[in-house]
Amino acid sequence: METPLNRSSGYYAVIFSSERTEQDEKSYSDMAELMETMAATMPGFLGIESARNDDGFGITVSYWETEEAIANWKKNVDHIEAQNLGRSDWYKDYSVRVAKVERAYGMKK
Amino acid sequence: METPLNRSSGYYAVIFSSERTEQDEKSYSDMAELMETMAATMPGFLGIESARNDDGFGITVSYWETEEAIANWKKNVDHIEAQNLGRSDWYKDYSVRVAKVERAYGMKK
Repeated sequence: METPLNRSSGYYAVIFSSERTEQDEKSYSDMAELMETMAATMPGFLGIESARNDDGFGITVSYWETEEAIANWKKNVDHIEAQNLGRSDWYKDYSVRVAKVERAYGMKK
Repeated sequence: METPLNRSSGYYAVIFSSERTEQDEKSYSDMAELMETMAATMPGFLGIESARNDDGFGITVSYWETEEAIANWKKNVDHIEAQNLGRSDWYKDYSVRVAKVERAYGMKK
């Protein structure tokens, strides 16, 4: 999944890397989709992109206007429920990195 | 692919998001593997992680000590050859974002 984002600096990236368990493929993917849809309605949301290998390793990067917007999404009650299920059932391990985007470039055919 | 990285701040993430063409699966994956191996030998390299969906969208995040280390890797001659093939043959589009990691946390079971 990918939402477009055409800005070169002054916003934040939340890099979420995770290793899935083999549990609950359907309920996991339903929840992941719901979280992406909900995140997109939050103030300060700029975009999100996700990829996962067949072996279970995946990366989701979400982009936000401010640190406050990130903190606000982290505290969302439905998102907290998803975070708890992630820790208990869905992920073997994960890392979250909050980073400030300093420059960007790309190509589009 | 994932190399471990246990630091919470003061380094850089290069977020490379791309949409693959259908061309050259074997030569692409050989080159991607070679580039990850070579990047790991560069000064200031800290780690790399990649994931790609079956539909062709992928994210690679590499981590570096300094902006200089990133610039140095970008100018590597073999890497420049790979970048040129990426633009001409392998990618429909891509984005590169350079971001400074400000905090990190995670879970490991």
